[in-house]
Amino acid sequence: MSLVVQKFGGTSVADPDRMKAVADHVARTRRQGQDVVVVVSAMGKTTDDLIRLAHDVCDDPPGREMDMLLTAGERISMALLCMAIEEHGVPAASFTGSQAGIVTDTSHGRAKILEVRGDRLREAVAQGKVAVVAGFQGVSIERDVTTLGRGGSDTTAVALAAVLKAEACEIYTDVAGVYTADPRVVPSARRLPSVSYEEMQEMAATGGRVLALRSVEFARNHGVVLHVRSSFTWEPGTWVNEEGTLEQAIISGVTHDTSEAKVTVAQVPDRPGIAARLFGALADDDINVDMIVQNTSTGGTTDISFTVPRADLAAAMRVSEALGPEIGANSVTADAEIGRVSVIGAGMKTNPGVAARVFRVLSDEDVNIEMISTSSIRISCVVRAKDVERAVQALHAAFELDRAPA
Amino acid sequence: MSLVVQKFGGTSVADPDRMKAVADHVARTRRQGQDVVVVVSAMGKTTDDLIRLAHDVCDDPPGREMDMLLTAGERISMALLCMAIEEHGVPAASFTGSQAGIVTDTSHGRAKILEVRGDRLREAVAQGKVAVVAGFQGVSIERDVTTLGRGGSDTTAVALAAVLKAEACEIYTDVAGVYTADPRVVPSARRLPSVSYEEMQEMAATGGRVLALRSVEFARNHGVVLHVRSSFTWEPGTWVNEEGTLEQAIISGVTHDTSEAKVTVAQVPDRPGIAARLFGALADDDINVDMIVQNTSTGGTTDISFTVPRADLAAAMRVSEALGPEIGANSVTADAEIGRVSVIGAGMKTNPGVAARVFRVLSDEDVNIEMISTSSIRISCVVRAKDVERAVQALHAAFELDRAPA
Repeated sequence: MSLVVQKFGGTSVADPDRMKAVADHVARTRRQGQDVVVVVSAMGKTTDDLIRLAHDVCDDPPGREMDMLLTAGERISMALLCMAIEEHGVPAASFTGSQAGIVTDTSHGRAKILEVRGDRLREAVAQGKVAVVAGFQGVSIERDVTTLGRGGSDTTAVALAAVLKAEACEIYTDVAGVYTADPRVVPSARRLPSVSYEEMQEMAATGGRVLALRSVEFARNHGVVLHVRSSFTWEPGTWVNEEGTLEQAIISGVTHDTSEAKVTVAQVPDRPGIAARLFGALADDDINVDMIVQNTSTGGTTDISFTVPRADLAAAMRVSEALGPEIGANSVTADAEIGRVSVIGAGMKTNPGVAARVFRVLSDEDVNIEMISTSSIRISCVVRAKDVERAVQALHAAFELDRAPA
Repeated sequence: MSLVVQKFGGTSVADPDRMKAVADHVARTRRQGQDVVVVVSAMGKTTDDLIRLAHDVCDDPPGREMDMLLTAGERISMALLCMAIEEHGVPAASFTGSQAGIVTDTSHGRAKILEVRGDRLREAVAQGKVAVVAGFQGVSIERDVTTLGRGGSDTTAVALAAVLKAEACEIYTDVAGVYTADPRVVPSARRLPSVSYEEMQEMAATGGRVLALRSVEFARNHGVVLHVRSSFTWEPGTWVNEEGTLEQAIISGVTHDTSEAKVTVAQVPDRPGIAARLFGALADDDINVDMIVQNTSTGGTTDISFTVPRADLAAAMRVSEALGPEIGANSVTADAEIGRVSVIGAGMKTNPGVAARVFRVLSDEDVNIEMISTSSIRISCVVRAKDVERAVQALHAAFELDRAPA
């Protein structure tokens, strides 16, 4: 019998009524003759509530205990979901990360999966049960409870789909799939029937919030076919696989991100080792640097700019300013009012001139480009935060993304 | 170094402020040079909230999933308590029932402890840490999460104290110890400095709500010294040990219970096997029969009365009425308006006439006695529910329990 992994996020199980709707769908899938393994997140705002409680008793919660605390959230939702599924006469059993055999390293709060055993899940499925697994959690090689960090439930689902050789991993969420742009910014944005792993990775990395980057990478590496779809309408969504869309569009979507800030280290001597020193120091402080751009040298000095999550800006400035004199920088400046717009599409590889067209569209809209970075299937521009929505709308229209390709 | 087990109930950790007060006390105990293992219940009304959620998604929650759900409560409180303890610079680590090695049978919702391994707790203590253990939970021999039922956290604490050879097991609660009567009924009730296991067992069995009967039995069987005390005033409370009070009081306390109902099976033939049939049938239906009284036979028939928790009354009536014709009963009647008053004291063994004095006190108060049952250190009378408080007050006064014995 073929097996499908179904993952439900927090909004999909936010209250008992949503929980019952999910149970109904799972039971229906099971009765249609599919084996089902479910991965579930904590209900609605449970995780935020628990984090608040932790800060009520403690200024700097230790990682081990924070993981013990947060994993209570998935424990509650998976037990309730099992009960709701059994109410349909479909046998179900819940499993913690540890019981499911999800073995991780010891990095509390952002553990990496080392191994997935899954024996108890296989047993449960062989007995005709729906296995419901707590997302986001595992057990470390030192037998402590760990969490996988942001997007962790997606990673759990993909890892289980890989090890259980599932036909597909269905990621249910509060949107109907992957869109050509954020529909809140571009009302005419269109749902993509399918995208390739490569495109999905670029989208996830540049602001597409539907899937966590890590889970897409994992899916790609293990050949797990993803299906991103809605737990509200239950209609078919977007498939993520090797081929992606068979349509001939040049670009698949426009993403944006306004959660970052920019740091510029100006006029450092243009000699080997400067960048290594700077980014080594930032890495030592666990600062998550995203985009890095260094201009061509003029007059023996060069400017280095990089973006970081806005929450890390103060720390990034501290590190950069401390290092400034040592690396001979003229100044270090911060800018929190930036945003990034990216166009993504596998079609770029065979269509030269896309970059030029992007720059022209932005120029026609009077949007100034402050930084540019590209990959073979992506062009990203850092612009003023206030220009972001206008830039997304203009690019979406210019590439005719609201129309299905011929 | 000597080790103490400290158990905190739900009211002791009901909110972040209470949690911090508990952490402060634990840290202080640790700094005074004691090794400490803490057992903690779920915060305040968490368990009730979770039970309500279960009934929101499901009419009859399966036991396995109910246990998975409810154990989230202790998980939250133990993680938070660890954080609050570490805030004092005292290292702490939390352990689930499974991690603590509390192995149970497979009876979900009322599992029995089969073995306590405790290796990880010993390791943690040897490393100078306070080990904080989730009360009320274990892991079954089939590797499923189980709960120990009512009073389960007390049982966890006593079992750990036994296996870790603790000097004492401190049970912190919202009252200051064991009293000669419920202070809400008898304002002059006095806290007992100590009671024997035997007396405490009788008190727990007859309505004294401070300790669960099962944990007292466990403590007695394993020689664990208990200290029942307040987590609000932190003053010394009541010791429970082999000797009990060294005072010469005849009785130690008066307890009462108004949570039961009475069933009378009238005029059954007085021949062997009738009682066995009746109580066998009730046991088969998992009905918890407490007190049983059978009158002396008159005219070849006899009346059998028994008490059950009020929640079980309907089921007990159904079983008794179904069996009635078969065992030749004349009628089966229910009475939910009863209460039980008990006087308890090891001094009874050497003081004849206590029973007669009890009956005279109740008679002087115009309290009619409907059923009587005794043990070597206890006399219990079933009376009208409305007479219970008056009976308790009269007995407490008659035996001068408000005065410390000479």
